[in-house]
Amino acid sequence: MASDAGKTGEKLDKMSLSPYGEARATVNDNPLSEDEVTRLTEYFHATLYLCLGMIYLRQNPLLREPLTVDHLKRRLLGHWGSDAGQSFTYIHMNRLIKKYDLNAIFISGPGHGAPAVLSNSYLEGTYSEVYPDKSEDIDGMRRFFKQFSFPGGIGSHATPETPGSLHEGGELGYSISHAFGTVFDHPDLITLTMVGDGESETGPLATSWHSTKFLNPITDGAVIPVLHLNGYKINNPTVLSRISHRELEALFVGYGWTPYFVEGSDLPTMHHAMATTLEKCVTEIKSYQKKARDSGKAFRPLWPMIVLRTPKGWTGPRKLGDHFLEGFWRSHQVPITDVLKNKTSLQKLEDWMRSYQPEKLFGEDGKIRPDLKELAPTGTRRMSANPITNGGVLRRKLNLPDWRDYCIEVESHANSRFGSMGNFAKYLRDVVVKNQDQFRVFGPDETESNKLSAIYEGGKKVWMGDYFEEDEDGGNLAFGGRVMEMLSEHTVEGWLEGYVLSGRHGLLNSYEPFIHIIDSMVNQHCKWLEKCLEVDWRGKVPSLNILLTATVWRQDHNGFTHQDPGFLDVVANKSPEVVRIYLPPDANCLLSTMDHCFRSSNYVNVIVADKQEHLQFCTKEQAIAHCSKGVGIWPWASNDQGEEPDLVMASCGDVVTAEALAATALLREHLPQLKIRFVNVVDLFKLISPDEHPHGLKDHEFKAIFTGDKPIMFNFHSYPGIIHRMTYRRKGQHNLHVRGYREKGNIDTPLELAIRNGIDRFSLAIDAIDHLPGLGNKGGVAREMLADKRVKSKIYAFHEGIDPEDLESWTWPESLSNKDPEA
Amino acid sequence: MASDAGKTGEKLDKMSLSPYGEARATVNDNPLSEDEVTRLTEYFHATLYLCLGMIYLRQNPLLREPLTVDHLKRRLLGHWGSDAGQSFTYIHMNRLIKKYDLNAIFISGPGHGAPAVLSNSYLEGTYSEVYPDKSEDIDGMRRFFKQFSFPGGIGSHATPETPGSLHEGGELGYSISHAFGTVFDHPDLITLTMVGDGESETGPLATSWHSTKFLNPITDGAVIPVLHLNGYKINNPTVLSRISHRELEALFVGYGWTPYFVEGSDLPTMHHAMATTLEKCVTEIKSYQKKARDSGKAFRPLWPMIVLRTPKGWTGPRKLGDHFLEGFWRSHQVPITDVLKNKTSLQKLEDWMRSYQPEKLFGEDGKIRPDLKELAPTGTRRMSANPITNGGVLRRKLNLPDWRDYCIEVESHANSRFGSMGNFAKYLRDVVVKNQDQFRVFGPDETESNKLSAIYEGGKKVWMGDYFEEDEDGGNLAFGGRVMEMLSEHTVEGWLEGYVLSGRHGLLNSYEPFIHIIDSMVNQHCKWLEKCLEVDWRGKVPSLNILLTATVWRQDHNGFTHQDPGFLDVVANKSPEVVRIYLPPDANCLLSTMDHCFRSSNYVNVIVADKQEHLQFCTKEQAIAHCSKGVGIWPWASNDQGEEPDLVMASCGDVVTAEALAATALLREHLPQLKIRFVNVVDLFKLISPDEHPHGLKDHEFKAIFTGDKPIMFNFHSYPGIIHRMTYRRKGQHNLHVRGYREKGNIDTPLELAIRNGIDRFSLAIDAIDHLPGLGNKGGVAREMLADKRVKSKIYAFHEGIDPEDLESWTWPESLSNKDPEA
Repeated sequence: MASDAGKTGEKLDKMSLSPYGEARATVNDNPLSEDEVTRLTEYFHATLYLCLGMIYLRQNPLLREPLTVDHLKRRLLGHWGSDAGQSFTYIHMNRLIKKYDLNAIFISGPGHGAPAVLSNSYLEGTYSEVYPDKSEDIDGMRRFFKQFSFPGGIGSHATPETPGSLHEGGELGYSISHAFGTVFDHPDLITLTMVGDGESETGPLATSWHSTKFLNPITDGAVIPVLHLNGYKINNPTVLSRISHRELEALFVGYGWTPYFVEGSDLPTMHHAMATTLEKCVTEIKSYQKKARDSGKAFRPLWPMIVLRTPKGWTGPRKLGDHFLEGFWRSHQVPITDVLKNKTSLQKLEDWMRSYQPEKLFGEDGKIRPDLKELAPTGTRRMSANPITNGGVLRRKLNLPDWRDYCIEVESHANSRFGSMGNFAKYLRDVVVKNQDQFRVFGPDETESNKLSAIYEGGKKVWMGDYFEEDEDGGNLAFGGRVMEMLSEHTVEGWLEGYVLSGRHGLLNSYEPFIHIIDSMVNQHCKWLEKCLEVDWRGKVPSLNILLTATVWRQDHNGFTHQDPGFLDVVANKSPEVVRIYLPPDANCLLSTMDHCFRSSNYVNVIVADKQEHLQFCTKEQAIAHCSKGVGIWPWASNDQGEEPDLVMASCGDVVTAEALAATALLREHLPQLKIRFVNVVDLFKLISPDEHPHGLKDHEFKAIFTGDKPIMFNFHSYPGIIHRMTYRRKGQHNLHVRGYREKGNIDTPLELAIRNGIDRFSLAIDAIDHLPGLGNKGGVAREMLADKRVKSKIYAFHEGIDPEDLESWTWPESLSNKDPEA
Repeated sequence: MASDAGKTGEKLDKMSLSPYGEARATVNDNPLSEDEVTRLTEYFHATLYLCLGMIYLRQNPLLREPLTVDHLKRRLLGHWGSDAGQSFTYIHMNRLIKKYDLNAIFISGPGHGAPAVLSNSYLEGTYSEVYPDKSEDIDGMRRFFKQFSFPGGIGSHATPETPGSLHEGGELGYSISHAFGTVFDHPDLITLTMVGDGESETGPLATSWHSTKFLNPITDGAVIPVLHLNGYKINNPTVLSRISHRELEALFVGYGWTPYFVEGSDLPTMHHAMATTLEKCVTEIKSYQKKARDSGKAFRPLWPMIVLRTPKGWTGPRKLGDHFLEGFWRSHQVPITDVLKNKTSLQKLEDWMRSYQPEKLFGEDGKIRPDLKELAPTGTRRMSANPITNGGVLRRKLNLPDWRDYCIEVESHANSRFGSMGNFAKYLRDVVVKNQDQFRVFGPDETESNKLSAIYEGGKKVWMGDYFEEDEDGGNLAFGGRVMEMLSEHTVEGWLEGYVLSGRHGLLNSYEPFIHIIDSMVNQHCKWLEKCLEVDWRGKVPSLNILLTATVWRQDHNGFTHQDPGFLDVVANKSPEVVRIYLPPDANCLLSTMDHCFRSSNYVNVIVADKQEHLQFCTKEQAIAHCSKGVGIWPWASNDQGEEPDLVMASCGDVVTAEALAATALLREHLPQLKIRFVNVVDLFKLISPDEHPHGLKDHEFKAIFTGDKPIMFNFHSYPGIIHRMTYRRKGQHNLHVRGYREKGNIDTPLELAIRNGIDRFSLAIDAIDHLPGLGNKGGVAREMLADKRVKSKIYAFHEGIDPEDLESWTWPESLSNKDPEA
């Protein structure tokens, strides 16, 4: 019956790319009885009837009266184009779920294909269980129709309100990476994934096919992608639908899959072809998994996938007047647009809807016919009710080691250098060790560069590609590992999103500047989380943790392209209910912060911390106190004890904290009469008003820390603007002088880069003097000395033969730690 | 000699994936004389010697003395891994440039491979011409070495300081899309493009291979991609280097290319293989182009490309102690790291460098041997000196129609609805018509949806895929077109960047929410432009114009995922010297703005304007005056003539302007004694201080418009934060109350969405009353009425049977236009 793809290609290759006619397929058989074909067709028609109902009707849901304009929605919205192909695939999976008792979920990749998913969820009864007013009767169906793409209702993607969905679409490109995220560590799961041929043109989707190189057949489940060659996007043909069969087949072999083609429009033959092909995929997957699991030896098969070529808007009218509809991009959205004004069109719509014979499919009570309902699985085997798609309900807490056991000794403040990230790696390693089935670390080939390589002792890098002899030399590769590295921020982020949305935990680590690559993905994940808060049956999923390192201030040799701390601006725009931003200043604060993030749920946590060696400030106890407050005065660096200060020196971020402390030391050296209060911010949202973010300090708390009237020099890790927008309502806002990254980059020493951007100790101290009235001559003298030092340090940095590393220590004022009141 | 790829595949398929040994290749011949092989090797060695010199030396550049630690840089930075493969390819192209008098440029895709490009540019003399102090002698070489990855010097990417570069890398993934951008409308150009196998894992790169479906062999040049299978990224093997030959070959056939393999490490045989293969690529390209040009019939061949598999760090030591170096990721960066402290390592480095025999390659004066220099082309045929890589010097002004001829009639303000975008499309069509060889419009399948389809009358959509009968039904496809649409924001942006960097003009149109997909690309382009300002030999390139539409406020049926106006935050963080943001409120202002943008150079212009029908405000003359100022008072909407107002109502954006005007009308209806000044902002950077952006209003100008002490209700298109950060220094900042998008989205009517986010007319008017002291009882009454209307409009929006379109007109106060003093 079956033959390998690539061998029958020639037959298909000679055929036209047209999606019309009897089915042609890579594998051919007739596994269905005539009755099965009939019932499958009827069930399929029932879903399509519901799709049209959602787009058009607000009354008369089963057309028990002749259709009139009054039955229609006044504004027609929604998408028809991909509904049929998606529903067709969904229904065929139902057959196999029943036959093999599969644990399966469905991911709808094509944009705006929600009617396909919603209609199946409604027929399966899940929709009515979740939303009792959308009951399985005529009135429920009417309400089910009306809410779709209607003000106050639901959208035309598989939004969080959709039972069985953990992937909305909206922005396209992530169906495959999300699907892989769901099957990692879910060895029995099969995620059936529709991929739009429009979506497949996006970069993120194009590279995500390579996810097979990271899938272990022993510990992970499987993905069955169905590339839906619908042929058209909004207004254009799709690239993959207009290349030769040879190219198309080669492409997927090249991506590491075995593509099985199912092409055509004739329903009976298409049912046989799809039933045969999908069953072949399932049995192949089972046999690969069995082989690997029986032998204990993982390998990388060319996993099966399906290329489904059907007409866009399949089963609709081929033409409307002179214009093509089915099989053309005109069927993308509302297929017949002028039904409100054109009686002929209205009649066409009615004829079309009646052609599905609703009176035969639904009983008098409006319920789907019982013998049709039998085609769907029941309970949690329904793809619309699989709890994996509501991962929050499956969430188990992480088994976390005590972070305090990993704290470093800080004998005196700001007096020793240490790598915060390397230290955190040990804690992270043990998180990996203790959570081998529900925690993974993701990153785009930067985990070692980011000083996190200690985690490989707890779990190596998953690698299903070939192995070379040199891999033994610290390659840290394994078939079964816990670290996922591919040079695609999109793919690793997509995997992580799929992993947490299906109930597990993880961390993405990335260079700070390149996290902008996934701005829009994080955006969409935030929107998903926010909307879930309004959906009461959704459980809270583990937080998505993003650790940013290789930060802007230590790009000495990478230069300007590696300097962009602006991801925080993107995140800060999202709903305060779902975003958290932390900038721990040192090793112990980093540990405390990460522990907190790993315990949280339903957030996007962004943590910024550099990977190089840095001065250390807080002891374990101080870190506990400081991070639990999120912002605080550091008494050991202040000399305003018990009094109002003349100046507040504040910082947020590690490098800028060191510079601000050094500036404080310089000022105290040159102007010992000054009373300076030193404040550090770990939790960025502490700055904002409490009515804009739950973490915001109340005004009196803000005043108690920052004063209401004293100059504040605020040294910030990122662009200054974010501090200004967060504090614009605070009293004394005009006294707040923020220094941060100002897009003044070059191949610089760290100090030179700091000077160019004005966050260095000298600039800060000078700026403080400029904002402090009444210093008189002493201020002028100090200012001159500091300016001179700033110039000298610049010259020094450029002087031939000086090791920039030496420069760093040369300019660090030793006096700081000597003045530590606790030392 | 030649045989088609795919037929010899089997031989290669049976071989190991190891990159070592004699060359094996898809096509085999021995076209080089022994002398040529020798000289190519020597030239190659000369470039590699220079690469190591750049990484290590600050003295003793030609090793005329024994190497000591004092000759070394104190901090070793730079990247060795991909240098050899890139230089090898570059040198072989030189041979063909000379042989066929080719017009060619080189794009260096792999990260941090600049030494390969820099060394070739130095040997060709270009570097010394551009930077005379880096002269072709010993002292010049010493300076050339020292500046590399050194404070104040140049980076390890092909930064703007690099002659012959228009692609820096930094963030990876855009080499192929940039390359295609350069060859569109450059029919004789061949862009040789090295693609890193790390880079090839990124999404943007993975889909950009499909660019061939948009390349016309008659009007466009050609790209020769060289996929460099170096084998390793920073710390990981690459996916494409560890899959079978069959998969790899299939992948590129699938992408629409003919892959020719060149694999090995043995230099003489590799020279023959590369010479044969690259020549085959060039002659195939020429023959495809000739066929198409002679016949006038465009077609899509499977264009030739090269897969070059060589060891990472090729020609370096295979092992250092127990560790692998050549052919492993340990050679990625500085290959021998401990030379400053380990004498044995220092000796190894010296032996290695001397193994290239610098004393034979360079003369007594430090110049490359004359018979080697002959291998490189001369003048502008040198890839390092091709003016296309300095596109600004080739820039021709656009031939622009007079935008005023396209203005719409505005008889009375805010009294008629019109589609600004559809009108702009006519102007844009004529820009296309008048600039058929130097202007293209780019977009991800949204041009028609964005109401710009009129441009197809001036130039259709380029499509080199297959054609179906229905394409005649408004498909607007053509082999030769001026509109480039592929559902990959990354690819179309990359094409546009390549197009403008090589001297031509263009426009990208996109849905507003999905432009975040290319945040990081626009970031990098801004950084490139900014750095170019410091490079005096770089000409100004045409601006990169990004038109955002389908904006946040009109996502009635797309819902929450389609609502994100935050791209402006990302852009506003970039250097003020290169970014401009405009929000024209209506059709005539849009025309004026676009005309301005098309005349500009060296900027990234971001223009935000909705595509739906909107109220129109400005006559042609008013638009001229308003847009040339960028911000201004609208007297016809104000009633404070000649006096200080009680309230300033301000807006920036089209929808929010209509709402703010309606609020003004409501306030004047209910509180006629109020003096209200209406201000509109087109040029967002007018708000910021002039020392932060050249467009910023001076403080007295700001005060003259916004007052220094009156309440300002500012209705903003995007997130409010950006207004606060821009105005935090302005006097009266605490009186500025900004309303904007607050991430409160749903499937809503436009008015309901506005209400949820607080930018609607009722909320604005109520807020204004709340901020106006002394209104007494009248204020309270008005407030109550407005609150009642707000509630009613909300209810109305949800009420069954109301057409949301009707709702919009229902709530629009007719009184506004009646109060127009000019009407």
